Amino acid sequence: MKVVRTIEEFNQLKVQHQNKSIGFVPTMGYLHEGHTSLMQIARKEQDLVVVSIFVNPLQFGPDEDYDEYPRDELRDEQIAQKNGVDILFLPDVAEIYPKKLNVSMSIKRRADVLCAKNRPGHFNGVITVLTKLFNIVQPDVAYFGLKDAQQVAVVASLIEDLNFPIKLHAAPTIREDDGLAKSSRNVYLSASERKEAKNIYQALLYGRHLFVSGDQSMGKITSEVISFLKVHTTGKIDYVDLLSYPDLKAHIGETEHLILAVAIQYEQARLIDNIIFNKHGEVIETITY
Amino acid sequence: MKVVRTIEEFNQLKVQHQNKSIGFVPTMGYLHEGHTSLMQIARKEQDLVVVSIFVNPLQFGPDEDYDEYPRDELRDEQIAQKNGVDILFLPDVAEIYPKKLNVSMSIKRRADVLCAKNRPGHFNGVITVLTKLFNIVQPDVAYFGLKDAQQVAVVASLIEDLNFPIKLHAAPTIREDDGLAKSSRNVYLSASERKEAKNIYQALLYGRHLFVSGDQSMGKITSEVISFLKVHTTGKIDYVDLLSYPDLKAHIGETEHLILAVAIQYEQARLIDNIIFNKHGEVIETITY
Repeated sequence: MKVVRTIEEFNQLKVQHQNKSIGFVPTMGYLHEGHTSLMQIARKEQDLVVVSIFVNPLQFGPDEDYDEYPRDELRDEQIAQKNGVDILFLPDVAEIYPKKLNVSMSIKRRADVLCAKNRPGHFNGVITVLTKLFNIVQPDVAYFGLKDAQQVAVVASLIEDLNFPIKLHAAPTIREDDGLAKSSRNVYLSASERKEAKNIYQALLYGRHLFVSGDQSMGKITSEVISFLKVHTTGKIDYVDLLSYPDLKAHIGETEHLILAVAIQYEQARLIDNIIFNKHGEVIETITY
Repeated sequence: MKVVRTIEEFNQLKVQHQNKSIGFVPTMGYLHEGHTSLMQIARKEQDLVVVSIFVNPLQFGPDEDYDEYPRDELRDEQIAQKNGVDILFLPDVAEIYPKKLNVSMSIKRRADVLCAKNRPGHFNGVITVLTKLFNIVQPDVAYFGLKDAQQVAVVASLIEDLNFPIKLHAAPTIREDDGLAKSSRNVYLSASERKEAKNIYQALLYGRHLFVSGDQSMGKITSEVISFLKVHTTGKIDYVDLLSYPDLKAHIGETEHLILAVAIQYEQARLIDNIIFNKHGEVIETITY
């Protein structure tokens, strides 16, 4: 595995691998099984696996946890190495943002609900850094986890709207044994928070159950899920929403898939999770665009 | 020469030309010697020459000449063929904008002066369509004419800010024998307007002469050029500006190059022209990024 820190080094390496298919896993590091599952899928499907680790300041709000976001470069290198990564791209902030950007990118739809409501500008930062990373890495397929389902929907828009010659592979959320979605931010849960956090996933399953049972309105389902969360967790509920997927609209009439998504603010960590299912309630774990 | 109208057809052709260097000349058609000079430079420098013709609705304001913009597809095909073009890409509006864009791109600096003052949103439309065309064509080098010097400055920002793996070659403005810059819009000049329009370039040369003579302030130079234009043309002066290039700032202290640019509104055509020179007054005709 080659570790490169500059775009120039990356380009030099890339020239040596012409005509190879490239799978790309962009991450913010502090790698866990959610990330390694993506690396393993990319390893199976592509000639060359590129992973980037870049905690992107542009997607953090001024009061968010950019400084506190967990980082452990040495550990990440070992994990990437073990999972068959060919090139680990570790740029610093000055490499990605050498000067004030003149071009600004923003997203109009799919970014006014769920996480975007309380994180204004977050997805603008996401699509900006991904556009840059896509142009640097030039992958054939980009791999994302469906835990960040809204991010997947936004990236699908980015690729489609701007004609990026890139396929999108959205892979299943990886969970702890008790169902808690793997997340770099889980390390910031207290022992008691960690214990009760399994109920976030239970709440999603309960919501899907209500949907399948069929005699519940959308509004009723989200109310019931909120009640469940209030009883079984101590975190502050940021949102519980049942929307169409990937369009993320409240009106679900003609769309094929639905997403039930939740965000909970604990003392030191904001956790998100979701479940995507079709009209028959069958869970969708993998989506490719 | 292959003529393709869809992205899918283009992609099929592209697969047949792997590992060839690609030169790309994006145009709005109604081709003239300004465009063919770019094709010829690309022909000399690259394996494959791709020209697109697309009158981009996104870069026209509601009161501008999108509907009236001159079009002649058959003539353009013949001209492209004669100039060694390999692939002529002629998408229609639905091919480039199949649905409402979710991602929005805008430019903050370099687009608040000159043409952008009276064409709000124009350069946002330019960078959006170019991002799409760059992603479709994936050229090694994109060729632009310096007649649209502000566009060149904006595209340089786009490529740099978003890390497009593309070099920019800005080639000399091509002029009629009397000095009038070649432009698709020149066909809309009346006979008398056409005759006097040569004075636009004369005004630029006069401005440069004043700069070289050295005892004139920037403000004085633009005033003198405006006076010259008022005497020698009947068109409405949209702007005359002397700025740094490519940053397009009024303060010229440390920059290497300057641009003296002018826009004149005639009855049916708005013409632009410029001259770029260094601090010694030496004219810069070609710029590569």
